[in-house]
Amino acid sequence: MILLFTDFGVEGPYLGQVEAVLYRRAPTVRVIHLVSNAPAGDPRLSSYLLAALSGQFPPASVFLCVVDPGVGGERAAVILKADERWFVGPDNGLLNTVAAQAGSVEWWIVRWRPQRLSRSFHGRDLFAPVAASIALGEPPESAVWAGPDLTGWSGDLDQVIYLDHYGNALTGRRFTPELSGKALRFSGLAPIGQAETFCEVPRGSPFWYRNSIGLVEVSVNLGSARDVLGLQLGAGFTMQ
Amino acid sequence: MILLFTDFGVEGPYLGQVEAVLYRRAPTVRVIHLVSNAPAGDPRLSSYLLAALSGQFPPASVFLCVVDPGVGGERAAVILKADERWFVGPDNGLLNTVAAQAGSVEWWIVRWRPQRLSRSFHGRDLFAPVAASIALGEPPESAVWAGPDLTGWSGDLDQVIYLDHYGNALTGRRFTPELSGKALRFSGLAPIGQAETFCEVPRGSPFWYRNSIGLVEVSVNLGSARDVLGLQLGAGFTMQ
Amino acid sequence: MILLFTDFGVEGPYLGQVEAVLYRRAPTVRVIHLVSNAPAGDPRLSSYLLAALSGQFPPASVFLCVVDPGVGGERAAVILKADERWFVGPDNGLLNTVAAQAGSVEWWIVRWRPQRLSRSFHGRDLFAPVAASIALGEPPESAVWAGPDLTGWSGDLDQVIYLDHYGNALTGRRFTPELSGKALRFSGLAPIGQAETFCEVPRGSPFWYRNSIGLVEVSVNLGSARDVLGLQLGAGFTMQ
Repeated sequence: MILLFTDFGVEGPYLGQVEAVLYRRAPTVRVIHLVSNAPAGDPRLSSYLLAALSGQFPPASVFLCVVDPGVGGERAAVILKADERWFVGPDNGLLNTVAAQAGSVEWWIVRWRPQRLSRSFHGRDLFAPVAASIALGEPPESAVWAGPDLTGWSGDLDQVIYLDHYGNALTGRRFTPELSGKALRFSGLAPIGQAETFCEVPRGSPFWYRNSIGLVEVSVNLGSARDVLGLQLGAGFTMQ
Repeated sequence: MILLFTDFGVEGPYLGQVEAVLYRRAPTVRVIHLVSNAPAGDPRLSSYLLAALSGQFPPASVFLCVVDPGVGGERAAVILKADERWFVGPDNGLLNTVAAQAGSVEWWIVRWRPQRLSRSFHGRDLFAPVAASIALGEPPESAVWAGPDLTGWSGDLDQVIYLDHYGNALTGRRFTPELSGKALRFSGLAPIGQAETFCEVPRGSPFWYRNSIGLVEVSVNLGSARDVLGLQLGAGFTMQ
Repeated sequence: MILLFTDFGVEGPYLGQVEAVLYRRAPTVRVIHLVSNAPAGDPRLSSYLLAALSGQFPPASVFLCVVDPGVGGERAAVILKADERWFVGPDNGLLNTVAAQAGSVEWWIVRWRPQRLSRSFHGRDLFAPVAASIALGEPPESAVWAGPDLTGWSGDLDQVIYLDHYGNALTGRRFTPELSGKALRFSGLAPIGQAETFCEVPRGSPFWYRNSIGLVEVSVNLGSARDVLGLQLGAGFTMQ
């Protein structure tokens, strides 16, 4: 199973080209579009969403991760093996939160380059072939083991990392029991209390809760937290 | 074949998680994204779109249906077998129009619960495993037969139930021959006449026609009925 | 491998219906959504995007192409074999740029019609069954060879043909070495210089470059060319 985590948008021509490369190299492997609208060009916010989502998938799952504003520049291509799951992507921080939260971590730097490498679409030309190889159980060609080192990334981020289709605001903070009963405060807004489910909150009222991937999430019952609270990507908060 | 009918949006992280559960439980079954932008949080309007679309699919097709604003609350999880097709979803009306229009109907209530059931994502945790089991030909675990009773739903709805990518307005009214030649009237708008095809109408003019799934649909040739007529979801009309 | 190139939008109900037809007729063939937001109702602009994308796919790939504002009218359904790739779609110009750029070209007119042919959804009822047959290696039923004739289409178009998810403006002009160093001029805007990669340009500055499918593309580093330059589909330019 290869899971695509990108900021490509789903309607445009990019995901299909990646999928075609995967199909040609690994025709028996199922490809699933996990996220196609990761925060565009923002590897840091995206990294917290990737980490929260990936935990539910079984060992040997391969994540093809592309949020890559520096494509064509100096950043390396890397492979991360974290808690038996594989991640392929640019070395721009996108994979760092997965590593920071994992129990076991190994990194490789990909030296292999395809015969034809465009300057602007390494997702198709470089990362997809590497992900296909890993999904087939083949060791990545010419990858250099880089050890278990991290880049000093924190495991949590008290910011809005994603606004979903309904206007819910996912944050980079993992829920832990000591947060129970605390209020979540955005600067300039009234404190937001906790709830267990949407339906215990009056229509139109904001609340925070532990969402289905273990993160603190701010929502409005039968409404849009993005619109009601005026939230944007990156908005910071405290838990008190 | 499992067909996904949801209001999840296609770019975000929800459909991919559902698809991964289906793949792990039923790896040989094809999964197709039928509708990802059903009227958000509106099971009633959504139910008419589901009913109109599902009629073209063969026996044993399984529809995984999630428009579920009451997730985490008291509503039951149900299975509907209607004219040899299977539907899995919340008991909030979403499946009722299918039942109201079908010749043969059976309902079950799902008692089975997974070991881990989130409060906010029953599409992934509950409905997807049940749909996978049905697609594999296994009887749903612990489902209780609830008989052929309906909830008094009407087979048609004279409202706009869906605005598509082009701005066409699909309605909940099934075309029947006695509608031929009648005018469709929205309150405050000029009467709209019938046409057979887009190209027999002048550019920019509105018309109604029998669409490809058997519904009365309001369109504008080479334009957007939504924009030209100012139509919104739920707008009511009469046929005279 | 069947590649879908449409203006259907990806969330709505149309692509799923097409995919279900393909699955029922050719269950072993992989279906890939290549483009779902081709310029709506504009076969001419769309044709240049299709031509640029299709060149990377292997022989025997089948492209199911539907940008079809004249559906239900007089236009024919055609099959194009160009450089060993197959294309199925309406005879409204959508396939003409592929033909104009190809080395070997053959056209057929499809006479076959399904038992049930809607007036508004030939993508599902007519083009999909034909594409499935071709993907299975079966000659299209009742197709009439129409020879290698073209319709006088040019191989390049100096206009914006597509605005992607990031706001990049793809043009219908294929990159050739003699363009190197030239400036790209839109009427009323400052000349735009060439760059090799995004990261050699200051943040927020526009540039043009050879994109990953061989076209001249106008971009803004870490920004949206659509927004910064106010570009729209069809905007013309010169290279000087």
